[in-house]
Amino acid sequence: MNREKLIFLTNDDSYRSKGFAAAIEVARQFGRVIAIAPEAPQSGMSQAITIYNPLFLRKVRDEEDVTVYSLSGTPVDCVKMAFDHLFRDTKVDLVLSGINHGSNAAVNVLYSGTMGAAIEGAFYNIPSVGLSLTDHDLDADFEGAVKYGAQIVGKVLEGDLPLPLCLNVNVPNVPCDEIKGIRLARQTKGYWREEFFRRTDPHGRDYFWLTGAFSNAEPESEDTDEWALANGYVSVVPIQVDLTAYKQMEQLKKIL
Amino acid sequence: MNREKLIFLTNDDSYRSKGFAAAIEVARQFGRVIAIAPEAPQSGMSQAITIYNPLFLRKVRDEEDVTVYSLSGTPVDCVKMAFDHLFRDTKVDLVLSGINHGSNAAVNVLYSGTMGAAIEGAFYNIPSVGLSLTDHDLDADFEGAVKYGAQIVGKVLEGDLPLPLCLNVNVPNVPCDEIKGIRLARQTKGYWREEFFRRTDPHGRDYFWLTGAFSNAEPESEDTDEWALANGYVSVVPIQVDLTAYKQMEQLKKIL
Repeated sequence: MNREKLIFLTNDDSYRSKGFAAAIEVARQFGRVIAIAPEAPQSGMSQAITIYNPLFLRKVRDEEDVTVYSLSGTPVDCVKMAFDHLFRDTKVDLVLSGINHGSNAAVNVLYSGTMGAAIEGAFYNIPSVGLSLTDHDLDADFEGAVKYGAQIVGKVLEGDLPLPLCLNVNVPNVPCDEIKGIRLARQTKGYWREEFFRRTDPHGRDYFWLTGAFSNAEPESEDTDEWALANGYVSVVPIQVDLTAYKQMEQLKKIL
Repeated sequence: MNREKLIFLTNDDSYRSKGFAAAIEVARQFGRVIAIAPEAPQSGMSQAITIYNPLFLRKVRDEEDVTVYSLSGTPVDCVKMAFDHLFRDTKVDLVLSGINHGSNAAVNVLYSGTMGAAIEGAFYNIPSVGLSLTDHDLDADFEGAVKYGAQIVGKVLEGDLPLPLCLNVNVPNVPCDEIKGIRLARQTKGYWREEFFRRTDPHGRDYFWLTGAFSNAEPESEDTDEWALANGYVSVVPIQVDLTAYKQMEQLKKIL
């Protein structure tokens, strides 16, 4: 165990969430923890940034090895505030985002505020880990996520891997001792199909609640993150930030 | 010119923006236009979805070949509302998102609400084009963006390209007759470095405004979108939605 490291922590469920407390438990095993987390829940905020509103920063906890700030913005705002303002000249060893209440496997990586922050961390050339538990419950059991999260963070800190590095780690919602291990995987193909629940407000105006279900387009593919999770494994997907679809270049050359 | 097509339109600057009117001008050249656009500006909203608030949908324009709704949500909410609620069984030929006031080249693709909506359109297996002009001015000159946007939309409608297909199209901020043509490109490597402007509110609380500058890590690379734009070309980058960094798999196998 190396107590010398500096870990930056953020999430998308706010600094008050149980998953955030669990992430502090993971991070402080490796050294000093500095956190900026959203003031209010920011689930589904993707890589959004705040352009039209000012950002309020507040110190909410200050102990020997854990300092926590809250910010009135998105997860990505928290990362930017950390590395472009609060500790511009401080060497940070790892960005940990989470622990998220709910899965960020498959296409969720694109909607997730937790993963938005992890991707942003990779932009600063700091190894970044987004950590999620596939259980939305506010009082979810994070024992397995803390145990395997710490294993993966430890390996990344010691691994000396080429940068940029961003990992999307998801932990199945089973008792800790039933988790079968860690599986490197790719992002599952699939999509969300939404159902809009219609209601009428007291003024007679219709409104809608967004809700939906994930449709897995390849449930039998054993190399995907959804398969790993459905079969009791922790899934680890390395994430890239170059969205160029190089394979489509040749076809596009013909028409443009 | 094919007047038979059905084009779905959205953007991130709201249905009141000049760029949205310019996008209608592009789309109606090809057929009927149905639009759901945000009620309020949603720049920088990435692929965010609205989880904690209800969504209000309102018809704001209804003509023979153009129908426009506004939605109190994000650009991605608009796309989901369109294809999972409003016209579930209607065949839509193309999703056009824009025309954005401001560049979505390079890493902006990840923060952009315009591109968030275009990526979401691709999830529904509909050819999607995100169209942006590199000028933030509310009263920007969209002549070049309309001309070249229509060329590209026409080619995509006729091209019968394999799906999913999502194009990130950016138009340089030069007079229309000075645009040199269309260039297929890849996403430029680089990042934003932010500067936080600090102010104090009347209650004595500090707050910050997020602002920054894009740092191009490869200004000499002629195959990038930033190079194309800097040299007077319209840039077209095909976008993928599988974020798996396959190249990092081997290295990760060694440590996990």
